[in-house]
Amino acid sequence: MAEAAPKADLRALNPATNEHFGPSFPEPSAAQIEAACAAAAAAFDIYRETDLETRAAFLEAIAAEIEALGDELIQTAMAETGLPQARITGERGRTCGQLRLFAQVVRRGDWIGARIDPALPERTPLPRADLRQRFIPLGPVVVFGASNFPLAFSTGGGDTASALAAGCPVIVKGHSAHPNTGAMVGSAIDKAIKTAGLPAGVFSILIGQQRTLGAGLVADPRVKAVGFTGSRAGGVAFMRIAAERREPIPVFAEMSSINPVVLMPAALAARAEALGTAFVGSLTMGAGQFCTNPGLIFALEGPDLDRFEAAAVAALTVAPPHVMLTPGIFGAYEQGVNQLLDRDGVKLLARGCVGDGVNQAVGALFSVDAETFQRDEVLSHEVFGSSSLIVRVKDAAQLATVLESLEGQLTATLQMDPADVEAARPLLPILERKAGRVLANGWPTGVEVSHAMVHGGPFPATSDPRSTSVGTRAIERFLRPVCYQDIPDALLPAALKADNPLGVRRAIDGVL
Amino acid sequence: MAEAAPKADLRALNPATNEHFGPSFPEPSAAQIEAACAAAAAAFDIYRETDLETRAAFLEAIAAEIEALGDELIQTAMAETGLPQARITGERGRTCGQLRLFAQVVRRGDWIGARIDPALPERTPLPRADLRQRFIPLGPVVVFGASNFPLAFSTGGGDTASALAAGCPVIVKGHSAHPNTGAMVGSAIDKAIKTAGLPAGVFSILIGQQRTLGAGLVADPRVKAVGFTGSRAGGVAFMRIAAERREPIPVFAEMSSINPVVLMPAALAARAEALGTAFVGSLTMGAGQFCTNPGLIFALEGPDLDRFEAAAVAALTVAPPHVMLTPGIFGAYEQGVNQLLDRDGVKLLARGCVGDGVNQAVGALFSVDAETFQRDEVLSHEVFGSSSLIVRVKDAAQLATVLESLEGQLTATLQMDPADVEAARPLLPILERKAGRVLANGWPTGVEVSHAMVHGGPFPATSDPRSTSVGTRAIERFLRPVCYQDIPDALLPAALKADNPLGVRRAIDGVL
Repeated sequence: MAEAAPKADLRALNPATNEHFGPSFPEPSAAQIEAACAAAAAAFDIYRETDLETRAAFLEAIAAEIEALGDELIQTAMAETGLPQARITGERGRTCGQLRLFAQVVRRGDWIGARIDPALPERTPLPRADLRQRFIPLGPVVVFGASNFPLAFSTGGGDTASALAAGCPVIVKGHSAHPNTGAMVGSAIDKAIKTAGLPAGVFSILIGQQRTLGAGLVADPRVKAVGFTGSRAGGVAFMRIAAERREPIPVFAEMSSINPVVLMPAALAARAEALGTAFVGSLTMGAGQFCTNPGLIFALEGPDLDRFEAAAVAALTVAPPHVMLTPGIFGAYEQGVNQLLDRDGVKLLARGCVGDGVNQAVGALFSVDAETFQRDEVLSHEVFGSSSLIVRVKDAAQLATVLESLEGQLTATLQMDPADVEAARPLLPILERKAGRVLANGWPTGVEVSHAMVHGGPFPATSDPRSTSVGTRAIERFLRPVCYQDIPDALLPAALKADNPLGVRRAIDGVL
Repeated sequence: MAEAAPKADLRALNPATNEHFGPSFPEPSAAQIEAACAAAAAAFDIYRETDLETRAAFLEAIAAEIEALGDELIQTAMAETGLPQARITGERGRTCGQLRLFAQVVRRGDWIGARIDPALPERTPLPRADLRQRFIPLGPVVVFGASNFPLAFSTGGGDTASALAAGCPVIVKGHSAHPNTGAMVGSAIDKAIKTAGLPAGVFSILIGQQRTLGAGLVADPRVKAVGFTGSRAGGVAFMRIAAERREPIPVFAEMSSINPVVLMPAALAARAEALGTAFVGSLTMGAGQFCTNPGLIFALEGPDLDRFEAAAVAALTVAPPHVMLTPGIFGAYEQGVNQLLDRDGVKLLARGCVGDGVNQAVGALFSVDAETFQRDEVLSHEVFGSSSLIVRVKDAAQLATVLESLEGQLTATLQMDPADVEAARPLLPILERKAGRVLANGWPTGVEVSHAMVHGGPFPATSDPRSTSVGTRAIERFLRPVCYQDIPDALLPAALKADNPLGVRRAIDGVL
């Protein structure tokens, strides 16, 4: 959330130098917010009935236009975020791959969820009408770009791709941490709209830094859903605005997760050092600025855990510092680490290398016993960045108890060997209840964009566990079912007409 | 919602006589609420992993146990609700049919939504992990029974059936208008639980009348979702409690709808009298105590509408009075009708027959012009009962405008002939945006329990338009996806194991 008004016009800031650069972005006016919402509402009925091929080709055209921005986009995003070239290039690939994957989903048409229960005119005591169901999109969607993924979770990122795939016009609230990147991607989407001959209101971006911009968009009666990736405080604020509207609307906020990792005894005995080193690799990647950063480690205390700690300490001590995304994020990270340094019973195990640049995150690793962890709520708050806490448990029963006490998470991970299977079995139901994704023998960072992925989970990981913000199931969050009863074929949507002109899969009396 | 405390213990009231009968139901204590929530939470991990056949057979056993209650259930429900025998008998059939339909859905296993994206170890630059997804149930669900369907939308009704089908334990807040009916159905479900050897916490019912009972259940941290059918005020109150919890949870509230019916010109010209008569039949059925009661009629003013009105007036004038469900509902109906009698520009066309019994609804039909309707918000509030308002529009443009101004609805109906198709075409997108079900040439009362049904719609018809409370799609509201990444086969849930022991349909790389 932006700080209090008034402010100077927004300009990009290079977090590696604390220098502003590029053009000014005047704060969008109330009239501009109004115009974006009006245009989105006006575009909705047209866009939602685009044929599948037109919509799929449009998503592919966005990908091509983003690629056509070339190296200038890469350089701009790097300068605005401090993220390295390989990361931004990879993220562009992910962003465009995501758009193309949703194009495939749109073409396949399963998302329409077509169902037909044919009329039963002879049924007694009452005949049955002809009933047909399809999903239609919710309406205009406001998307809040994330600071930490300037491409993949931002202007043309996951929420935009899934909302457009569903048939919803999108209004992006461009993140103030990367205004030029946002504007460039926005112009690429505008080009794709023109090429496809779609109404301009299918997409718009409003770049600003005032709290009133986001709040105004969420409150607008023409907006029917919100996608958000960011802080817990920000997400909860928008949830509240959405709930207090005259017509409450769904908010899909991806907010806060500390991603517990459990080191099972056999795995820990067999490969403590390798686990310690790999853990620090996951922890410090991208300055730890991932929603899925492993912020909590659980293991039985003892010599194997000591070996893990020693390896992690050795790796972290030589881990280079990374510039963080913004001075604000860096400040919050420092504050979070300092708070942990002050807590009773929390022991600092290691810090990473200190650099000489500005806004550089220095990794931090702490340990604590399970009783203290359960007593002190602060210890299970997310510290966004490369900070993690090892929780030493006494036995399997305490491990289950402390896992049961956790809030909702995006991920939960088991490091386990075959000999750990029976000990892991009773933990799995707990982890399923806590998280949207359960992993074995990997690290939670790195979220595949595919059909079976879930990037979601119970509150506060997200505002709505029934959904995912990554993967093709994300299209479903922006849809609602409508039933057509005895509607003449001439008026039925194509997916439900008698001769199935779209050739989509349909369930007849519940059977596909 | 119950009125202010303290009160005498709850006893059933026969609304046809205003006489209490049967045993007292002491208000559930805080300890009883606690015990129900604890039992539900304890049962969850066991119940949610019951095999498909066990769960399906359990749902069928509930249906059989309800039927085994025999005529005593019918007589009890009739005495508590004032509803006639044919209606209650039919409703029992619907309730048991609903449970058996969900048993079929459970057996088929499509609801698990199994997806597998196989590992791609050779992929460059990064390999892909093995990713598998299934839906799991949300957790214990609180169900608020409806006053107007003592069987089909109450203790063993739609929300209970779909939540149990999904694998969620259910705690019913039994409606104070039919405590004995609720207790009998509850005992039937308890018997089915014992027969199936399931934990007792899979189902419980708490019968009471205090606001604290429902509020306490919705606020309990072990409760993960709420199903509600009732008033807008009640639903909104529970939405607020759920949103303000430490962990907000979804509320599926089905609340308020006035179910617009549009009489298209050719249909009106061809069959004004038949439409008028049929309309009054739908309006007065069951004293109009249906969520889908046709509370608004739109038509072009002129001689055809005059004929429709004359036929409706003739039919309503001889329509017999019906006893309503409770004195409270009768009082609210009278108040709603009296409020309409007082509004400027609203004309009373007819009242139904006045009877000599207590709590008897006398039908009411009003008319108003479209300008007045749009100006006066009160005119689009639901009056629960057999009251309806005819809105006379000047032309097609005004019809579209006034439809566009409506709040969300459960249903929207077009009375149309083939000659009306082109005039109806531009209305369809508006009606789709406003309602969960769009009908032609029927009346909205009568909600089929099937696969393609949608009983839902935008707020205030419901709290969440992405769902339905009737039909097999209702199981989805109580599910959330979980992804399993590289989890060993020995720990995978059956639906995702390599050899697919359940034989359920699975999507491999997005293809079924």
